Amino acid sequence: MYQLDLRDGLARDTPREWAESCLARTLTLEPKLHAFVTLDEGVTRKAIDTLSSGPLAGVTVGVKDIIDTVDLPTQMGSRLFEGRRANQDAWIVARLKSLGAIVMGKTVTTECAWRTPGATRNPWNLDHTPGGSSSGSAASVAAGCVPVALGSQTLGSMIRPAAFCGVVGFKPSFGAIPRTGVLPVAPSLDHLGLFARSVGDVAQVAPLLFGQNDGDAVPAVPAWYDVKTSDAPVLARVRTARDALVSDAQRALIDEVQRKFEGAGARIVELTLPPEFDAVWEAARAIMAAEAYQVHRDRIAAMPGKAGEALVALVEEGAVVAPAILEASRILQVSLRTRFAALTAGVDAVLTQPAIGEAPNGLGDTGDPVFCTPWTFLGVPAITMPAGVGPNGLPLGLQLATRWGQDVQLLRAAAWCEASLALPRQIALG
Amino acid sequence: MYQLDLRDGLARDTPREWAESCLARTLTLEPKLHAFVTLDEGVTRKAIDTLSSGPLAGVTVGVKDIIDTVDLPTQMGSRLFEGRRANQDAWIVARLKSLGAIVMGKTVTTECAWRTPGATRNPWNLDHTPGGSSSGSAASVAAGCVPVALGSQTLGSMIRPAAFCGVVGFKPSFGAIPRTGVLPVAPSLDHLGLFARSVGDVAQVAPLLFGQNDGDAVPAVPAWYDVKTSDAPVLARVRTARDALVSDAQRALIDEVQRKFEGAGARIVELTLPPEFDAVWEAARAIMAAEAYQVHRDRIAAMPGKAGEALVALVEEGAVVAPAILEASRILQVSLRTRFAALTAGVDAVLTQPAIGEAPNGLGDTGDPVFCTPWTFLGVPAITMPAGVGPNGLPLGLQLATRWGQDVQLLRAAAWCEASLALPRQIALG
Repeated sequence: MYQLDLRDGLARDTPREWAESCLARTLTLEPKLHAFVTLDEGVTRKAIDTLSSGPLAGVTVGVKDIIDTVDLPTQMGSRLFEGRRANQDAWIVARLKSLGAIVMGKTVTTECAWRTPGATRNPWNLDHTPGGSSSGSAASVAAGCVPVALGSQTLGSMIRPAAFCGVVGFKPSFGAIPRTGVLPVAPSLDHLGLFARSVGDVAQVAPLLFGQNDGDAVPAVPAWYDVKTSDAPVLARVRTARDALVSDAQRALIDEVQRKFEGAGARIVELTLPPEFDAVWEAARAIMAAEAYQVHRDRIAAMPGKAGEALVALVEEGAVVAPAILEASRILQVSLRTRFAALTAGVDAVLTQPAIGEAPNGLGDTGDPVFCTPWTFLGVPAITMPAGVGPNGLPLGLQLATRWGQDVQLLRAAAWCEASLALPRQIALG
Repeated sequence: MYQLDLRDGLARDTPREWAESCLARTLTLEPKLHAFVTLDEGVTRKAIDTLSSGPLAGVTVGVKDIIDTVDLPTQMGSRLFEGRRANQDAWIVARLKSLGAIVMGKTVTTECAWRTPGATRNPWNLDHTPGGSSSGSAASVAAGCVPVALGSQTLGSMIRPAAFCGVVGFKPSFGAIPRTGVLPVAPSLDHLGLFARSVGDVAQVAPLLFGQNDGDAVPAVPAWYDVKTSDAPVLARVRTARDALVSDAQRALIDEVQRKFEGAGARIVELTLPPEFDAVWEAARAIMAAEAYQVHRDRIAAMPGKAGEALVALVEEGAVVAPAILEASRILQVSLRTRFAALTAGVDAVLTQPAIGEAPNGLGDTGDPVFCTPWTFLGVPAITMPAGVGPNGLPLGLQLATRWGQDVQLLRAAAWCEASLALPRQIALG
């Protein structure tokens, strides 16, 4: 059976030694990093001791704590779910285990994958946020604790923390990874995805986790993706209505990246999204709030005082979304996905910023998802990779996105971009 | 643990005896009925011998052959999948097993849940079609072989065969039951559901199979549904643009049923769907064909001559659906779901016919899904139950549907209707 060779730079003479070195590193760094909400050394050691074969043998995985696991609590970062233990693994966890992977622990999420942050710190500078909501997953990969971690994205909960922590974050097409056993934020917008330290690592793992159109009967999984065969891509430097929010350093970096890619043979065209895309932020917000209201209202009502302010506010906002606005938002979502496919028919991917800039100082706020929201709303695959360092010494990234269902094409273009950047591969927290 | 008491009239002093009596009946009737494509007595006996506890202990289940099972082949009724065996159970199969249920075997489906029929016969008259695509599931429940069977519906693949075979068929809200491990026809329209011999049986089993918005993290499963607490419902006799297609006997039966319900205390109002609903059939067809093309084109191209004519024709039709039509169809789907919720806000359910009439003579065609398509397109829950007998001595049913997400309310109204009809419970093939 094919054995993955994830490029994490850690000791890995055997799958067992690899997993043990990850566990040791996790236990060493966790007191500073706070990436895990549940870390049960006994459970992890037992999984290592009974390690099975498979393409992911020895690969330790951080699992966001909104994803059910049978042998560790799943508490959603919320007092609403304190002490909760699921009675079965989420689909994606069961799949990972069946491929030989080992769950390292449950990673910190903001409350119910919405706003209120947990304790995780940015491994590049402990005074800064790692981003969210998939805070612990991004940080644990960045710190070299695990080669792979699972996250979810409803607006910008993967791409933003990945960029803030200097790792690769990949949010596949809407529906690509079955979400069975994952707490919803808003079912029409929720995506599962993964963090790793290189595009190549992501490309080796992600296709194993795809169902076909949310079923896994006869998965149409592409053959092992070969990062080496990609030709120079055609990219569209995309301009959105909110680009004025980007920081100078982040804008300059994307300009510089564009020049590098052109120098390496990529063709780059300009694409300004037409005005009908200007409503994507409000439309995403309306759908998210209205659906979050459905998901959480009963539980919040039944357990007064347990939910954090931000979650309560979101649910209250969702209670009063006008049906006509919700309907118009859903229609826009359907319509713009088609429009985006037409607009990008001639390019491999669009190129843009993943976030406003570096991770903000402080742990009280996980940053702004503004530059992730359009691609999540459209349900199209998006990936971020580290592309440089900002004025505060924290990572800055780039983001690529393309048409729904073109996940493998996106990974191919991303691999070319990563190779062209030729950055040294770094792990934070030394 | 609560133990189900399915009212199937079969010997069931213990779960084991019940399962054995179902197996014996299945083996006796199968040579006439042809409800199963795979029936492995050894596998079923082993499951009975290792019977576990749980609310479904001893409940034998027929599983439509587009749903993956690890210990029996899953061949989709197609030479494209001949000899295929999945490497894991579909989510719904794993869930059933974890509740104590026993897979009796794989039931006959039309090819890939589209048109080309299998060998199953209608247990009320072996010269007639059982309907499709969930042919074997409907027939096996009707013949008393199993108390429960799984089906799927993209246009009318459950409600129609249930009506033709004189059993209860329940298609829950779109997304209610996770479809992981099920071959898609068209992911935007595919629903999983179940057949049983009474509304009460359906109501006891279905909530156990619901995920929450396609995840099962913290399922919001309603408490055991109590069939006895329902007040007389408010129903809307709904009129659609294609009602002229209904047979005289079927129309007369719904009229009669309406009078019976009114006599028993139900309030019945009239609801004529406004003209924007007239496009549901064309829109459903466009989405289905376009998505079926995505699902099947590569496999059909790779295995020339293996797919049946009807499937090839559907895929060819899907290849040329104009993007503007597809987009308009998706927008209509979003928009009409909202509109339907507004139109039915004051009623418990709409009342209509499940099919044109009795099951047609012959096995070459499984009948017309015309009166199921609107509710599938809208993704709203729908249920059919037997309500009488037609001029050919075959069953005729009624259909109820209501707003998305109101599955329990629908089951409650349906239980009231079933009780008001007070029909003798019959099993076909004596």
